[in-house]
Amino acid sequence: MRILTGDRPTGKLHLGHYLGSLKNRVDFQNKAEQFIIIADLQAMTDNWDKSEILKENIFSIVCDYMAVGIDPEKSTIFIQSQIPQLAELTIFFMNLVTVARLSRNPTVKAEIKQKGFNESIPVGFFTYPISQAADILLFKPTHIPVGADQIPMIEQTNEILRSFNNTYKCEYFSDVQPVISKVSRLVGIDGKDKMSKSLNNAIYLSDTENEIKEKVNKMYTDSNHIKVSDPGKVEGNVVFDYLNIFDENKEELEELKKHYQRGGLGDMVLKKRLISILNDLIAPMRERRFELEKNKDFVWDVVKTGTNKTFEFAQNSIDEIKKIMKIKYY
Amino acid sequence: MRILTGDRPTGKLHLGHYLGSLKNRVDFQNKAEQFIIIADLQAMTDNWDKSEILKENIFSIVCDYMAVGIDPEKSTIFIQSQIPQLAELTIFFMNLVTVARLSRNPTVKAEIKQKGFNESIPVGFFTYPISQAADILLFKPTHIPVGADQIPMIEQTNEILRSFNNTYKCEYFSDVQPVISKVSRLVGIDGKDKMSKSLNNAIYLSDTENEIKEKVNKMYTDSNHIKVSDPGKVEGNVVFDYLNIFDENKEELEELKKHYQRGGLGDMVLKKRLISILNDLIAPMRERRFELEKNKDFVWDVVKTGTNKTFEFAQNSIDEIKKIMKIKYY
Repeated sequence: MRILTGDRPTGKLHLGHYLGSLKNRVDFQNKAEQFIIIADLQAMTDNWDKSEILKENIFSIVCDYMAVGIDPEKSTIFIQSQIPQLAELTIFFMNLVTVARLSRNPTVKAEIKQKGFNESIPVGFFTYPISQAADILLFKPTHIPVGADQIPMIEQTNEILRSFNNTYKCEYFSDVQPVISKVSRLVGIDGKDKMSKSLNNAIYLSDTENEIKEKVNKMYTDSNHIKVSDPGKVEGNVVFDYLNIFDENKEELEELKKHYQRGGLGDMVLKKRLISILNDLIAPMRERRFELEKNKDFVWDVVKTGTNKTFEFAQNSIDEIKKIMKIKYY
Repeated sequence: MRILTGDRPTGKLHLGHYLGSLKNRVDFQNKAEQFIIIADLQAMTDNWDKSEILKENIFSIVCDYMAVGIDPEKSTIFIQSQIPQLAELTIFFMNLVTVARLSRNPTVKAEIKQKGFNESIPVGFFTYPISQAADILLFKPTHIPVGADQIPMIEQTNEILRSFNNTYKCEYFSDVQPVISKVSRLVGIDGKDKMSKSLNNAIYLSDTENEIKEKVNKMYTDSNHIKVSDPGKVEGNVVFDYLNIFDENKEELEELKKHYQRGGLGDMVLKKRLISILNDLIAPMRERRFELEKNKDFVWDVVKTGTNKTFEFAQNSIDEIKKIMKIKYY
C-alpha cells in the first residue's frame, strides 16, 4: 500500500484539514508507505505573482504536519518544486490529453468560474489536472485520499495513465483508487460554509485557548433559545454540530441534547464544554508547534531530508518511464 | 554572443538544412558560444506514439552535424529530454501565458490547420511555444537564428520573458534577437515546394553521387527547350535556381545563362555541372558521415558530453531563476 497525499501551502492548517485529511495521515503512516507533497507549484497556478510567501507557508505547514503527529521517520514530506521529475512527467503527459478534454474537466470548470478567469485563464491553471496526474503517478501509489469533490481529478488521472499504457504498449501504471474521507466537510464557525481560511471562519491548529474561546462564543446556537429555560433546537445548532464530531462521550452528549431540547440548559454550558474539548485536542498540537517554530533548522532539515529521499525515488521512476518511452538513450 | 539553435530529430538532414542553418552554425561556433538542442520532446508533440524512432534519428542528426563541420569542441550539442530544467522552466512560464494568447499564435494556428488537429489538439502541441520559449531562455542567448516563418515564436518568447521580468520584479532575461537566415528557403528538386523530407523532394547530405545524379536529372528546366539549339528560359528553371545558389564561379554562370537564353546549350551540360558542384560539396560530408556511422560509441560520447555540460549550465540557470522566484528555499 502506497499513499500520495498533500496540500497546497496556502497558510496555517485548521480543524477542517485535521478532520478531512491530517488525522487519516497519522493512521496511514503506520500501515502504508506515505508521500506527502507540498504542492507549491500548484499553489502558484493561481498565485504566480505571490511566490514570496511560499517559503513561510511551507515552514508553517510542516510545523502543522508534525504537530498533529505526522512522523517524518514514517511519512516522506517533500516540496513539489524541488522534484524536477514531476515537471518532466507533466510534459510527457501533455501529449496524451487534448485541449478539448481539459476544458470539460468539471473541477477545473468550477474553479475557473469561481476565480473569474474566463478568457484569460493562465495555461498553468488550465493544465493543472495534468500536473496533478504527474504528481500522483510518479509515485505509482495504490491509494489517493481525496474529498468527494476531487473524484473528477482521479478519473482524469486514470484516463491519462490508461492512455500512457496504450501509447507505450506497457502496463506500467495501474488505476489509482480514491479513498474518500469519511468527514470530508467541517462547517466553519459561521455555520454556513465549509471551514476555510478565505471565509475567515476557521479554528486553526495553532489557535490559543483564548482564540478558541472567542471563536466558539461567536457560534450560532438557536436564535429562539433566549432564556435558559427555553427549549432549544439541536439541528442546525453549530455548537451541537461540533460536539457531534468532537465530543467522544456520546452518552453524555445525548443527555445534553435531550436537556437542551426540553429547556433548562444554557448555551454557555454547551460552549464551555466545546471550548474545553477543542482545547484538549488542540493544546498538545499547539505546544508541539510552538517548540517546532523555535527550531527552524530542524524543521527545514526534515523537509530537505524528505525531499532528497523523494528525489532519488523520483529519479528512479522517471528513468523507468523514459526507458518505456524509448527516450533513455544511453 | 551566445546562440541557441537546433532541430527536431526527424531524420537525415538535407541541403535545405545546410543552407538555412547548418552552414551558419559552422560560422557561429568560431565567434560565439553555441548551444545546439536536439528537440526530441518537441518532435514528440506531434508524434508522441513514435518515440521508438528518436534514438536512431538523434544518432543520424549528430552525424550530420559533425559531417558538415560542427565541432563538438566549439559547439555544445545536447538532447532536450535529458535536461529536466527545461521542463521546470516550461512549467514556470505556463503561469505567465493565457490560453487565449496561445490560441492566437500564428505559427501554432497554421500548424494546427496543416496537421488537421482541430478540436483534438494535444495539450503538448498547443503549448509548445511555451516549451520553446523555455528551451531558448534557459540559455539566456543573445541571438536566435531562425527562418522568417519563426518570427512569431520569437515574439511570443519575448512576451514571456517580459512578463517574467515584470512578475518577479527583475531584469533577468533580455529580449532575444532573431538572426534571420539569408537563404531561408531552398526549393526542392520538384521546383515547387520548399525542400522537405515529407514531400520527397530533398537532396540529403548523405546522398551518394548516384543519388545526386538521379535527383538532378529529374529537375525541370524549361519545357519549351526541346532541342539543344532552342533558346531556353533561366527564370523558373530549377537547375539555374540551384546553380545561382551553389555555383561559386559567378562569371562562368553568367556566360552559361546568356548561352542558354540564345540557344545552343543543352540541359545535360548544365545538369552535369550541377551534379559535379553538389557532389563536390556533399562528398566530404558523406565521407565524414560514413566514418562517424562506424564509430557509434564516439558519436554517443559527443552527445553525452554535450548533454552533461548543458545539464550543469542548466542547473545553474534554474537555480538563479528559482532564487528570483523565491522558491529556492534552502
